[in-house]
Amino acid sequence: MSVIAATWMRGGTSKCWVFEAENLQVPGKSVDEVLLRLFGSPDYRQIDGVGGGTSTTSKAVILSRSEHPDADVNYTFAQVGIDNATVDWGSNCGNCSAVVAPYAIERGWVTAGADTTSVRILNTNTGQLILQKVPTPGGRVPDIGTQMIPGVPFPGIPVGMGFYDPAGRTTGSLFPTGEPVDYLGFDGRQVPATLIDAGAPVAILDAHSLGLTGLETAAEIDGQERLLQHLDAARREAAVLMGLASTPETAARAIPKLAFVAPAESGDAADMNVRMLSMGRLHPALAITGSVALTMAAHEEGTVVRKLMTAPLSGTLAMRTPAGLIETWLDHHDGAMIVGSVRSARRLADAQLFLPDSW
Amino acid sequence: MSVIAATWMRGGTSKCWVFEAENLQVPGKSVDEVLLRLFGSPDYRQIDGVGGGTSTTSKAVILSRSEHPDADVNYTFAQVGIDNATVDWGSNCGNCSAVVAPYAIERGWVTAGADTTSVRILNTNTGQLILQKVPTPGGRVPDIGTQMIPGVPFPGIPVGMGFYDPAGRTTGSLFPTGEPVDYLGFDGRQVPATLIDAGAPVAILDAHSLGLTGLETAAEIDGQERLLQHLDAARREAAVLMGLASTPETAARAIPKLAFVAPAESGDAADMNVRMLSMGRLHPALAITGSVALTMAAHEEGTVVRKLMTAPLSGTLAMRTPAGLIETWLDHHDGAMIVGSVRSARRLADAQLFLPDSW
Repeated sequence: MSVIAATWMRGGTSKCWVFEAENLQVPGKSVDEVLLRLFGSPDYRQIDGVGGGTSTTSKAVILSRSEHPDADVNYTFAQVGIDNATVDWGSNCGNCSAVVAPYAIERGWVTAGADTTSVRILNTNTGQLILQKVPTPGGRVPDIGTQMIPGVPFPGIPVGMGFYDPAGRTTGSLFPTGEPVDYLGFDGRQVPATLIDAGAPVAILDAHSLGLTGLETAAEIDGQERLLQHLDAARREAAVLMGLASTPETAARAIPKLAFVAPAESGDAADMNVRMLSMGRLHPALAITGSVALTMAAHEEGTVVRKLMTAPLSGTLAMRTPAGLIETWLDHHDGAMIVGSVRSARRLADAQLFLPDSW
Repeated sequence: MSVIAATWMRGGTSKCWVFEAENLQVPGKSVDEVLLRLFGSPDYRQIDGVGGGTSTTSKAVILSRSEHPDADVNYTFAQVGIDNATVDWGSNCGNCSAVVAPYAIERGWVTAGADTTSVRILNTNTGQLILQKVPTPGGRVPDIGTQMIPGVPFPGIPVGMGFYDPAGRTTGSLFPTGEPVDYLGFDGRQVPATLIDAGAPVAILDAHSLGLTGLETAAEIDGQERLLQHLDAARREAAVLMGLASTPETAARAIPKLAFVAPAESGDAADMNVRMLSMGRLHPALAITGSVALTMAAHEEGTVVRKLMTAPLSGTLAMRTPAGLIETWLDHHDGAMIVGSVRSARRLADAQLFLPDSW
């Protein structure tokens, strides 16, 4: 039997098992094999392992100190199969990412600042550089933070998490049409829209021009088939204008995303109300990539987002979503623009996991 | 922040967090409060804690050495609420019970025998005494066992788990009618049945006399409304014969249980096929209490169970259920009869859990 050290952390709305890379080296076994057996896969309940039987609780984070000149930590994300014996290394997880900086600081891989500590992270799955900021009053990560995020009923340490230079990654430019505002057909009339590529391509519409408030529930949106058809027609027109499709009919279902925004209610801590459609239905919160696009738009003159903001724009942007308030930020670091969001993290347990010698 | 030592074990088809009683003593907090916060409750996902968001993965086992003259270990089971902030102390859990003996032996609370070790357990929730037997070749619990059980795709240490003197706990006698076999009306004819009270009151019918094989799937049984009506009529007649109800109409829905049995297929490792009805539908496996009744019946002359057994009865009984093979045993210990089943257990992790100071 092997004994493997691991730390169990909540990152955002996920639970993630954190391993240091060398601890997953088991003679005669691949890392995939080791992770699957530790997690109890394949088994839809993962009852004989540390996996939680759901996609958000069957995740591993593998860390090591980085040799990269721009990174302190190498971070590899693994989505561990539940009822299938496969490990998916193809993408990053925005939620699990949030555990990396607190772990690296507590581990001493990064020297903590007296007030705040920045950690430079290379996500090896995507090659994306991520900058994280964690409060470290007195030179240490607090035991427990006060940061609340939608979907988690308990507080955690705030982790500011930024994407380096997200503009134009898909189309080559922040505004593929060259303009901060365009007009799209919607139910027989023209409505303003900002077509932006940051994080992902997004068509951002003005809720009021659609007869909406930006505070709609899923039930209120998803039941309106005619509204959904009009919104999707506008989205497909945007795909063509952004150069993502040659005709509306050939536009992909997932790109661009569509969001609509409105000024926040008086007295709300939010800067604006946001609703996003995902695969033709209301998103329960807001995709992280979508939050990046909205934040970039809020900082650019002439966009539908900028026009509805009544308060002066600070470094942080607060958006009212169906799941609650989601905060993002925009900053500059060594000449690069960084757009990110605030997640929370908490260390749940330090553990020694028991791996059978054979199975 | 408090740091609380705990061991995560699979017991049967459950995952159970094992605590030593004194480790849950936190100044200013009740044990209920501590467990709920550690597990991340209330939250339907338990995303900020060690609970798994399902009833079978939100369980705690609290152990201490026993002062009871007939027990080595005091064992308290706690069902930790998921989306409600309550801890249920009212019942035992047969699955989590299986972790107690391996833990107590590894902890040195019970001296391991050279081959097998018996551990005497007092379940404080019910006052029930449980005797467990674990193989300890060479005087220690094996790292990993070879015991498979239905519902768990990986092996574990076999844990024999026995109920002391289960006969007549409800009605006062093993055969409330005084006979090992009676006859019940079923679809206009009379069919043999053993009406037995052991673990729980059960009416055990002969599958072939019902036109069944004892290998039926849920789909095959639950779709047959007329069959279910005939079976329930027989069950209600049994309730009256067993003194559990004065008329068939007033019989409780859950008592007695109804099972039907048939000889195992040629070449099957099972001694017999068993199907049990639970609340009018086919049980996905076999209730532990039901398995006790079937085992007692197999050891008594003249019962419908005994009559269909072709192989000589050994100490172990293997029953083919919808979930696979379930094994039970019957033994004597210090003059008491003990009937039990074989579960499996595995230690998944030793952990230090982090509990915030306030929440």
